[in-house]
Amino acid sequence: MEELFFYSLGGIGDVNKSLYVYETEKDLIIVDCGVGFPDTTMLGVDLLIPDISYLLTKKHKIRGIILTHAHEDHIGALPYLWGDLRAPLFATKLTAGFIANKFRDFSLSAPIKVINPGEKITLGDFTVDFVRVNHSVPDATHLIINTPYGKIYHGSDFKFDLTPLDGKVSDFGKIASAGDEGILCLMSDCLRSERSGYTLSERIIEEQLDKEISLCQGKFMVTALSSDIYRWQMVINVAKKHHRKVVPVGRSVEQAIVTARRLGYLNIEQNTLLDSKQIKSFPAEHLCILISGSQGQAGSALNRVANNDHQHVKIREGDVVVVSADPIPGNENAVHIMIDALTKLGASVSYSEVDDDLHVSGHAASQELMLLMALTKPKFLIPIGGTYRQMKRYLKLAEAMGHKKENVFLLESGQQVIFKEQKATLGHKIELKNVLIDGLGVGDVENIVLRDRQQMAKDGVVIVVVSIASATGNLTAQPEVLFRGFIHMKESEKLINESKHLVKEAIKGHFGKILDWQFIRKKIESTLGKFFWDQTARHPMVLSVIIEV
Amino acid sequence: MEELFFYSLGGIGDVNKSLYVYETEKDLIIVDCGVGFPDTTMLGVDLLIPDISYLLTKKHKIRGIILTHAHEDHIGALPYLWGDLRAPLFATKLTAGFIANKFRDFSLSAPIKVINPGEKITLGDFTVDFVRVNHSVPDATHLIINTPYGKIYHGSDFKFDLTPLDGKVSDFGKIASAGDEGILCLMSDCLRSERSGYTLSERIIEEQLDKEISLCQGKFMVTALSSDIYRWQMVINVAKKHHRKVVPVGRSVEQAIVTARRLGYLNIEQNTLLDSKQIKSFPAEHLCILISGSQGQAGSALNRVANNDHQHVKIREGDVVVVSADPIPGNENAVHIMIDALTKLGASVSYSEVDDDLHVSGHAASQELMLLMALTKPKFLIPIGGTYRQMKRYLKLAEAMGHKKENVFLLESGQQVIFKEQKATLGHKIELKNVLIDGLGVGDVENIVLRDRQQMAKDGVVIVVVSIASATGNLTAQPEVLFRGFIHMKESEKLINESKHLVKEAIKGHFGKILDWQFIRKKIESTLGKFFWDQTARHPMVLSVIIEV
Repeated sequence: MEELFFYSLGGIGDVNKSLYVYETEKDLIIVDCGVGFPDTTMLGVDLLIPDISYLLTKKHKIRGIILTHAHEDHIGALPYLWGDLRAPLFATKLTAGFIANKFRDFSLSAPIKVINPGEKITLGDFTVDFVRVNHSVPDATHLIINTPYGKIYHGSDFKFDLTPLDGKVSDFGKIASAGDEGILCLMSDCLRSERSGYTLSERIIEEQLDKEISLCQGKFMVTALSSDIYRWQMVINVAKKHHRKVVPVGRSVEQAIVTARRLGYLNIEQNTLLDSKQIKSFPAEHLCILISGSQGQAGSALNRVANNDHQHVKIREGDVVVVSADPIPGNENAVHIMIDALTKLGASVSYSEVDDDLHVSGHAASQELMLLMALTKPKFLIPIGGTYRQMKRYLKLAEAMGHKKENVFLLESGQQVIFKEQKATLGHKIELKNVLIDGLGVGDVENIVLRDRQQMAKDGVVIVVVSIASATGNLTAQPEVLFRGFIHMKESEKLINESKHLVKEAIKGHFGKILDWQFIRKKIESTLGKFFWDQTARHPMVLSVIIEV
Repeated sequence: MEELFFYSLGGIGDVNKSLYVYETEKDLIIVDCGVGFPDTTMLGVDLLIPDISYLLTKKHKIRGIILTHAHEDHIGALPYLWGDLRAPLFATKLTAGFIANKFRDFSLSAPIKVINPGEKITLGDFTVDFVRVNHSVPDATHLIINTPYGKIYHGSDFKFDLTPLDGKVSDFGKIASAGDEGILCLMSDCLRSERSGYTLSERIIEEQLDKEISLCQGKFMVTALSSDIYRWQMVINVAKKHHRKVVPVGRSVEQAIVTARRLGYLNIEQNTLLDSKQIKSFPAEHLCILISGSQGQAGSALNRVANNDHQHVKIREGDVVVVSADPIPGNENAVHIMIDALTKLGASVSYSEVDDDLHVSGHAASQELMLLMALTKPKFLIPIGGTYRQMKRYLKLAEAMGHKKENVFLLESGQQVIFKEQKATLGHKIELKNVLIDGLGVGDVENIVLRDRQQMAKDGVVIVVVSIASATGNLTAQPEVLFRGFIHMKESEKLINESKHLVKEAIKGHFGKILDWQFIRKKIESTLGKFFWDQTARHPMVLSVIIEV
């Protein structure tokens, strides 16, 4: 086949668990390998990872896994999937450092080749050129993927920050010259396509942090996503200016700070940095605490502080807590509850929802997305990394730039696009299932289990145990009826007695040896289901167990 | 006692289920009686209502219930609680109309006295003067409550809209003259105390709606809270201008439109209004649909439309849906999922999160809150209707206005404040419990039931059934082990066999007749609980049932 296939196993029509595939007849490369976050209907599920069953049939062709930047939704699934994929990893220095931490946490090791932006690698049919772009984490890259069938521009999460904190502006020259050479297809971040204008520079936050710290009488505490290295650098800068020691608190922040500093992405003077155990030896007004838990996660450092349950950090009147992160959708309540708890303990809390200058997005708004189109001048466009409405808005932007509707593909994960002779057509759609991480296991919570949990979560469970003499089909004892999470047992004597009666009635019709136990169980369950609905307007899960004696 | 007591049974330190009480030795009045919305930890609970057990001990003193405006969090609990309280109701015309609808839905009837803003009523020791203010629903009021111990200004939800749609500006004259006469205490809305400046006028939305409708090629659909009568009026205005018929869809919106129109709060020409059944007889570009479900509620009209499951409304390419409401915290996901589904069906969706001009708050921002302080010149201040962090910000505003910290009370619901001889002190704190509405019942889901649901929701349930010969204590059959919502039964043969073995082991130690069944059950449950945790890192609820044979 003289064709190039593109598809994603996550990260299209969805913001997370990014995994993109480029495939020719003999070679295949993977771009990113991220985790997703379960929505509130997936009770008890910790993480989602891409379904790679399809990839495993092509394992012999996989030449490498390229990671575009260090965010969880782009690298987080590696420890779960690398054992199956076992392909060499390629990433820029900081991304590689974060991946190495991750593997260490899982007691795994994998070869990671560190790439400098600007460097090229060849993986079979693919020659991949790494392009420096800006994002909320340093060392983020786009990829120019040269294939025998055309040049692809893989525009992962980015923004064009013209005044980035590290001075490393996106490599416009390289992007533009790739555009001049001719790009067959642009895959582009579209998460913020609905916002007009430009995303603000990360740099504006430093001024606001400076204002906050200069008014702070007690401990100055900032929370952000642990990989927000630029943000930590700004906090460290204002701490230095106001003669405060810097204390990372919480495992993910401590690890991120150590790694970023070791690799040269964070500038902290040695005598500035304290360990959390040293907090008690310094007066509050000399401390600046960088703390994990910006999403209000249960068990995170800031969450424990808010519950007055942290070993080293106690809130006192005069302390200031700055929440420099927007809640990920679904986390709003947890964050608001945490902010309220911190306020009650005496902290003054500033947060990005009220003060816009405390957080800026890492994603390009519509002007920047259109600028990327103008620079790359692609023949075809595929928005990635956004929901359907954001892809649709991206389509509008592309149309405004003169692109034809039929040249912009709004895909779903699993949908293949085939590039052949400078044309693009839709191919096969790979069926993907949700792969969930729950407790120690991978992929072992299936839909039926989730549905059961949802029903139990809503209305509880009723368990009926019936012991029947197998010879006669007669009850050998009173049926047992148990409620859990349905209504309080104490108040339900009448309901229990009536249901016992109904169970007996349901069985009565059968004389002699019962052959079809399954039928009896169904009958008991549907009779009681209807009865409970009539009585309480609730649908508990009814489970019957029949004991043959 | 020569004292006035003030306390709330909901609506302080919390935005919802407002119920405030003013009490003297012989008389008691209630202000508002609202519902609350459960947070995501209260699985399966539909609504929260105030705990009125304390009030019921004072039932003989209750002279009336005053409702300040027609929002659910201020009137929604009336049908649940009026049967116990049975006091006369007082409200302005539109509020009374909405309450009457509510009672009719519950097949109840209650006497409601309609009050005109500016009118005074006397209820025992209390003479209550109704003051017109602005809010997102028309006919909202503040109360000047004259008591033998001083004058109280009850400043329920409000904003000072200087260009309200109905031209009825807040009654500044009355507020100011009450201030001149001397206000002992100001109870004030504080929900938006964190926002600087003024809240925008509702009127600005009409211009944006006009822009949206003039670009719309198909059906024009708007969703908002059903009681947002001003917003519906603006939608009706632009529909008229663009020669579209108006179709209310969804029970709550239909009811709100009918009631507001009948009472003179909505101006719609008769020949403009269609029934949803008539939708199919008109071309899409002649329709303007007012639809319920702005919070993405399951089963709401817009939710059914988004799932392509509405009898009369089908989305077609060219349709525009405007979401003119911010998601209530906790509903963000549901709203985003709905917007995505509508977009996939072909609608172009505009929503307030992206376009600020599509929604304005009904609550006063800090400048307006300070203006109310300036007008009323109170001796004491109590922020109500906000969370703790919003009360604390209100305190800062009061301090900026020259009020002393000790004259501003940051309360919790149940905390009594005693006014005596122009002084205010904290009194007793009434213990309040959560009263939950679930299915048909009131207050019948207790904490233990909720906790059970949470555990089952997270990790599922394991049921063990053991039949034992009561005489010997020996098993009469293999134990039965059932999983639900834990791990998939099919994949768990090994786990089930091992747990059966463990159950046998747990029982084995007991020779002869078993006396303490409870002990055996606990032993089975704890043995298996530990085993499952070791094997799967999950904590399913383990339930054992022992059948004596």
